[in-house]
Amino acid sequence: MLFFLSSTFEPQILKYMTDIKTYIELNKQRFLDELFELIRIPSISSKEEHKPDMIKTAELLKKKLIEAGVDKAEVLPTIGNPVVYAEKMINPSKPTILVYGHYDVMPAEPLDLWKTNAFEPEIRDEKIWGRGADDDKGQMWMQVKAFEFMSKTNTLPCNVKFILEGEEENGSKGLIDFCAKNKELLKADIILVSDTGMIAQGIPSITVGLRGLCYMEVEVIGPNRDLHSGLFGGAVANPANILTKLIASLTDDKNQITIKGFYDDVLNATEKERQELNRAPFSLDNYKKALDIANVYGEDGYTTIERTGIRPTLDINGIWSGYIEPGAKTVIPSVASAKISMRLVPNQDPEKIAVLFEKHFRAIAPDCVKVNVKSLHGGNAYVAPIDTPAFEAASLAIEEAFGKKPVPVRSGGSIPIIATFEQVLGIKSLLLGFGLESDAIHSPNENFPLFNFFKGIETIPGFYRHFTELIEKLRG
Amino acid sequence: MLFFLSSTFEPQILKYMTDIKTYIELNKQRFLDELFELIRIPSISSKEEHKPDMIKTAELLKKKLIEAGVDKAEVLPTIGNPVVYAEKMINPSKPTILVYGHYDVMPAEPLDLWKTNAFEPEIRDEKIWGRGADDDKGQMWMQVKAFEFMSKTNTLPCNVKFILEGEEENGSKGLIDFCAKNKELLKADIILVSDTGMIAQGIPSITVGLRGLCYMEVEVIGPNRDLHSGLFGGAVANPANILTKLIASLTDDKNQITIKGFYDDVLNATEKERQELNRAPFSLDNYKKALDIANVYGEDGYTTIERTGIRPTLDINGIWSGYIEPGAKTVIPSVASAKISMRLVPNQDPEKIAVLFEKHFRAIAPDCVKVNVKSLHGGNAYVAPIDTPAFEAASLAIEEAFGKKPVPVRSGGSIPIIATFEQVLGIKSLLLGFGLESDAIHSPNENFPLFNFFKGIETIPGFYRHFTELIEKLRG
Repeated sequence: MLFFLSSTFEPQILKYMTDIKTYIELNKQRFLDELFELIRIPSISSKEEHKPDMIKTAELLKKKLIEAGVDKAEVLPTIGNPVVYAEKMINPSKPTILVYGHYDVMPAEPLDLWKTNAFEPEIRDEKIWGRGADDDKGQMWMQVKAFEFMSKTNTLPCNVKFILEGEEENGSKGLIDFCAKNKELLKADIILVSDTGMIAQGIPSITVGLRGLCYMEVEVIGPNRDLHSGLFGGAVANPANILTKLIASLTDDKNQITIKGFYDDVLNATEKERQELNRAPFSLDNYKKALDIANVYGEDGYTTIERTGIRPTLDINGIWSGYIEPGAKTVIPSVASAKISMRLVPNQDPEKIAVLFEKHFRAIAPDCVKVNVKSLHGGNAYVAPIDTPAFEAASLAIEEAFGKKPVPVRSGGSIPIIATFEQVLGIKSLLLGFGLESDAIHSPNENFPLFNFFKGIETIPGFYRHFTELIEKLRG
Repeated sequence: MLFFLSSTFEPQILKYMTDIKTYIELNKQRFLDELFELIRIPSISSKEEHKPDMIKTAELLKKKLIEAGVDKAEVLPTIGNPVVYAEKMINPSKPTILVYGHYDVMPAEPLDLWKTNAFEPEIRDEKIWGRGADDDKGQMWMQVKAFEFMSKTNTLPCNVKFILEGEEENGSKGLIDFCAKNKELLKADIILVSDTGMIAQGIPSITVGLRGLCYMEVEVIGPNRDLHSGLFGGAVANPANILTKLIASLTDDKNQITIKGFYDDVLNATEKERQELNRAPFSLDNYKKALDIANVYGEDGYTTIERTGIRPTLDINGIWSGYIEPGAKTVIPSVASAKISMRLVPNQDPEKIAVLFEKHFRAIAPDCVKVNVKSLHGGNAYVAPIDTPAFEAASLAIEEAFGKKPVPVRSGGSIPIIATFEQVLGIKSLLLGFGLESDAIHSPNENFPLFNFFKGIETIPGFYRHFTELIEKLRG
C-alpha cells in the first residue's frame, strides 16, 4: 500500500494520521469480513423478489452501526424500501454531519460475464470483487468504519447522523418521501456522501456536479401474435423494425437529441467554464485503450469531458424483441421493447423531460403500431459550490491523506437524492468518493481496490475535524 | 365437419370418396393419437440440445411408415440431422410420387404466451394445439395417413417414396447434401409436399410460388465491458443505439431495402402478372381485423398480396442488448445483437445477398464500434408452372373433396429445399397445403383445425389417382 505522507505537516497531524492508520492496520480483516457479509446479501432494489433481502440488509446495518458506536439506530419504514437511521449526538452546540449511503445494488446481469459469483465476494489482485464492492456498500462501509474509529478513540469532533437507503438504484422513492416527513430528524450542517469516484488512482478529486436522470420504458406493439415472417413479411409492420426506426430518430447526425423542447432549459456553459472543465487531467488515448474502442462518439463540438460533464445524453439501456436464443427463427415479433434513459444537466426537469419524451415518441410512431411509454424513475442534476467550508475541509483532509490537492470534477453520473436533499432539506452535500472508473460499477466484475477502501477510511476523520473547526470558527 | 360433395360426380368417384371418408371415420382417433405422439417430441432443429429428439422422431417415423404399409423404411444419416427414407414400389412402369415433409419444428419461445404446453398437444375448439400441429408434423401426417389408406385398401395407383427431413426450419443442410449424393434413390415424377396453406377456410388453393430466404445475425461491439451510463453516457458509442441506427438505415422512407445491389436480380412483375395476382380473394379489412392492426405497412406502390407474393423484404426476427429484466439498470451495454432475415424473390441468389448484406453492414458501421456479421442459412425462391399434370391432378382432387376449384397463389413463405429439388434432382414440386393463416405457425399457440387435417387426408388419394391417370395418358 502507498502512502503519500508529506513531511511538511505539523507533528500533531502526523500523530493523528498514524493513529487512524494503526487502527486500520489492526482491524482491516474485520472491516473486510463485515463488508463481505453485506455484499453477500443480494439487495437488488429493482427486483421485487429481493424485498426480503432489503430488510435483511437494513437490519444488519442497524446492528453494525450500534457496534460501531452510535447512540441509537433504527430501521424505519418508508413508502418504498426501509431506511436505516442512526445518530451519535455528542453536543447540541457542535456541528452535525449527516452521512448518506445506499445499501441497495444494481442487478448483476449478465451473470455469465462475472469471473466469480457477484454475491460471493473475494479478494484478488489487491481488489475486492463483487456487486456493491464499490457502489455503494464498499464506499458506505468506509464511512461507517471511519466513524467507528472516531467513536472508539473518543476523537469524534461533532455530532453525526446516518441515513442509509435501499432504493438509490431505483429512484429513491422511499427516501424522497421520508425526507419531506422528517426534516427535523435529518437536520444537519452538511451531508457527507461517498458514492462517487476519483479521476484516476493518484488523482484524488471532489465531485462538484452530477447529472440528472430520466428513465423511460417503451413498447411497440404490432400484430396480436408473433407472425411467420415469410407469410406476413413485407405486408405487416414489424414492431422491432419500427422500434429501431423510432429510437434511431431520437438523435440526429450531430448526436443531438431530437425530442422537441429537450434542450429548452439547458443552461449552456460559458467558454470560460468549458476551458476550466477541460483543464482536468485526462488522456483520450488511455481512455480509449481502457475501453478497447477505436474511437469515442458523442455530440459534435464537445470534448469527452464536456460530453459527460455538462451535456445531456440519451442511451438505450436495454432492448429486446423476438427470438433471442441461438439459431434461427423466422418470426415477426408481436412486441418490441426498450429501456431508454436520458442523463440531464442542471435546470432540466426530469418530469418535464419524461412528458416531452412520451409526447414525442407517440407523435413519431406510425399508425400501423400501438405504443406504450412509461417513466420508470428520474432525478434532478446537482451542482455544488466550491467556496464552502465543506469543500475546504475535504480538500485539506484529502491533501493530508493523499499528499496532493484534489481536483474538482463534474461527474456524468446521477445521485438523484442529492438534489432532493437540497430542495427538501435545504442541505448541500459533499461528494467525497474514492471509486475508480475501472471499478466497473453497474457492470459485471464490479471491484474496489483495497488501497482506495482503506485510504477512504483514512481520509474521512480529517474531514470531520477540519469541517468542525471551520464551522466553529465561522460561528465564532 | 362439412363436406362439399357435389352430386354431379360419377358414381364410381362418389364411392371412392365415401371409402376414404369411412376409413377416416373409423381411424380418426388413432390418427390423432399418432400425431400427438410425434408432437410430444420437441424436435427443434435450431437448438443443439435437441439432437437426441431429432433421432427419436426419425426412428418413430420409420416405425410408423412400416406400419402404414411401405416396403422399406430407413433412418439415414446426413451431414446434419438424419432423414427418413421409405418406399412402396408397386410396379416400375408406373409413375412415382416422392412425398416430402419435415419432422423438425420451430422453437416454441416465447413460452409464456402459450395457453397450453407447446409439446403437450390437445384438442380444443375443434383444433389440434401444439408446436408442429400444422408445420409440418400435422400436414406431413396427412400424407402418411392418406398413403396408409391406399396401401391398406389396395388402391395405391402408383409407386411412392417418402423423404422426411429434420432441418427444414434451419436451412436443410443435411438434405441438400443428401440429394446431391442420392439422385437415383430419390428419382420420381413429382414431389408432393403438404407444408403450405390455403387462402382461407373454404377457399382451397395451390401454392405456385415461394420466396427465398437469407438469414443473418449481426453483432455490434462497443466497449470491452458494460459501462455505467452516467459516467460514460454521451462520450462512448452505445452499441444498442448504433445498432438501431444501422438497422433503421437498411430500409428507406418508401420501405425499400437500401443494401447496394439488393434489387439488381429481381425480375419485376409485369402489369398483367400483377393484375392476375390481385384477383385472388382477399379482404384487407378482415386481414387487419384478424391481426388487430390499424393499418398495414410495406413497400410503397404495392398491394398487400404483392408485398408478400412478389416483393423481397427485410425483417428483424430478434434483437437484444443490455438489461432486459424488469426494472431499471443504467448501463451502456457492451454488445448489441440482432437476427435479420430477408425474403427473396425468384432470381435473387441468397448467397449473393448474404455477401451484399455483410459488405453493406460493415460499410455503414462507424469506427467507434466493431461488427460481426454471419449468415445463418438461406434458400432460393421457387415458382411452379400451372400447366402441368401435377397442377391439374391437384385441381381435380381438391374440387372433388372441397366442391370448388382451387386458386393458385404465391406464398410469402420459404421452403428452400423445393428450389434445391429442382436444381439438384430436376424434379418439380406440387405444393398441396391445407394450413390456415390463423394456424399461427412459428408462433405461440400453433394449431391446425381438425377439419383441415381430415380434409387433407381425404384429398390426397384423389391426387395420386388423377396424377397417375394423366401421366399414363401422356405416356400413351
